[in-house]
Amino acid sequence: MEIYLDNAATTRPHPVVVESVTRALTVDYGNPSSLHGKGLAAERLIVGARDAVARTLGVEPEDVLFTSGGTEANSLAIRGLAGLARGRHFVTTTVEHSSVRVPLQRLAAQEWVVTELPVDHHGRIAAAQVELALRPDTVLVSVMAVNNELGTMQPIEEISRVVQRHRAAGSPTLFHVDAVQAWGKIPLRPMTWGVDLMSLSGHKVHGPKGVGALYVRPGVRLAPQLGGGEQERGVRPGTENVPGIAGLGAAARLLAADFEETAARMRALQDRLREQIRAIPDVRINTPPDGAAPHVVNATFRSVRGETLLHRLEQEGVFVSTGSG
Amino acid sequence: MEIYLDNAATTRPHPVVVESVTRALTVDYGNPSSLHGKGLAAERLIVGARDAVARTLGVEPEDVLFTSGGTEANSLAIRGLAGLARGRHFVTTTVEHSSVRVPLQRLAAQEWVVTELPVDHHGRIAAAQVELALRPDTVLVSVMAVNNELGTMQPIEEISRVVQRHRAAGSPTLFHVDAVQAWGKIPLRPMTWGVDLMSLSGHKVHGPKGVGALYVRPGVRLAPQLGGGEQERGVRPGTENVPGIAGLGAAARLLAADFEETAARMRALQDRLREQIRAIPDVRINTPPDGAAPHVVNATFRSVRGETLLHRLEQEGVFVSTGSG
Repeated sequence: MEIYLDNAATTRPHPVVVESVTRALTVDYGNPSSLHGKGLAAERLIVGARDAVARTLGVEPEDVLFTSGGTEANSLAIRGLAGLARGRHFVTTTVEHSSVRVPLQRLAAQEWVVTELPVDHHGRIAAAQVELALRPDTVLVSVMAVNNELGTMQPIEEISRVVQRHRAAGSPTLFHVDAVQAWGKIPLRPMTWGVDLMSLSGHKVHGPKGVGALYVRPGVRLAPQLGGGEQERGVRPGTENVPGIAGLGAAARLLAADFEETAARMRALQDRLREQIRAIPDVRINTPPDGAAPHVVNATFRSVRGETLLHRLEQEGVFVSTGSG
Repeated sequence: MEIYLDNAATTRPHPVVVESVTRALTVDYGNPSSLHGKGLAAERLIVGARDAVARTLGVEPEDVLFTSGGTEANSLAIRGLAGLARGRHFVTTTVEHSSVRVPLQRLAAQEWVVTELPVDHHGRIAAAQVELALRPDTVLVSVMAVNNELGTMQPIEEISRVVQRHRAAGSPTLFHVDAVQAWGKIPLRPMTWGVDLMSLSGHKVHGPKGVGALYVRPGVRLAPQLGGGEQERGVRPGTENVPGIAGLGAAARLLAADFEETAARMRALQDRLREQIRAIPDVRINTPPDGAAPHVVNATFRSVRGETLLHRLEQEGVFVSTGSG
């Protein structure tokens, strides 16, 4: 029997997702920009997917833009704001995913200033740290909702309130949340919380690889990072990845259908795994017992190299990772 | 019966392509960055696809980078070179695809200078025009191989010789060819021709939407346009779109298998279509009789609006476009 425990790296697409992708490849294969029926049918798949993704966040469909994945969503949020040059300061943490950290480091090598906030031993930052770091010219605060390595949740609602107060005082500061590891695992309500930009990825939620989305609050402008046609309101041009988008929509519908049930099941599995890992000598569990998403367990096995353990477990049909992308 | 004549906009994925995509979704769904067997199996699909695409161009697999499509390939070539700032002048034509024209227009609005060469009534430029436009600080010449609206082929080999002579004289000038409408329709040999960068797209050759490739001649450096992991040699980070890439590889293998047969069949179909269109009164065929790719026929029907004709033809089961993306 195979036990696949590498879902924070990527998930197996759900059969319903596969069906949606296949349909877009074999039946609704038109170009959404074409004016004939085959084009309109492809366009309808995109409309349906946008609606499904929007529902999972409680936002309007027109505020969801499709991208080629979480990495592009993060880059579009960061570089798209930097390109408008309304300030020169960014705030982030030391534990963001490389798709947030690297674009910010590149900006820091140019005329930008980036503050990287340190985290505690659980990988967590406090909203008060963000408050102290804000400057009058802070363009963006970027903090992930759930850490990909530890599962730790950040205090997104509190940070959002801090950013909103700062903006009310006259600063251009927006708040971006990389929710790639959080989507489908914890409730996300960017509009209620006052989050301005939120990145999602398909392949972490049993959707296809190569597709993601960016929620953009109405009124927030981004400089497009690709030039071309008017697809995705001109912010993300290029012929739409209709099969991928249809698959992402199917995954979103599945998430919405059994969100609480799945979270409870993941929580129960995590408790069981934690208990059994704790029975092993010389082990430390790094994922905090409270305030973590239900789907990640990070543990250090002191007496064995990670890669050795990974290959040994694979021989037993268990698939794990030494890190999470 | 349906007659789909909108293949310059997008094609129907080949059943073998669909099979490859489905396999990557259902069996080889691991993350290529994961160290276990499921990760390695996904990585092998990418290696196989890279090899298949490289063969169609007669280049080395390691010089092919996968992107989210032709639009991203074009943007990466243009912005990736602009980001290295080895000069400030670009040369292109007035008839490039928007994914080339728009990024260049944005650069022109900044500190860059862009020369747009006019074309003749067949949409063609001459290598001599390029020669006259070159400056000591020209970074890039970008010319499409086959025009998406007319099917006209540009004198790519001649232009490449002009660019190479200019470079030999000490300029940093490189040559980028948008081959999205040319791939699989006319022979492409960037290495033999001395072309430095060449863009491809999956969905124009019975591959999936949402995936493309950029050939990058060894030694040519590009500034990555997305920040993140080390995928695609760090030039195009993000978890690889394994299903899309596998589908692109399958499409490339099919192209290579029956290239000449397909070209001859398309040519025969074009001749037949031209003949029958010519029998209609008040019509002008815009695609040149010589020096055009075999798959495009552009015609003006003077006595009817394009959209009216499009919808009337659809009632007969014939799908056409008034333009091509």
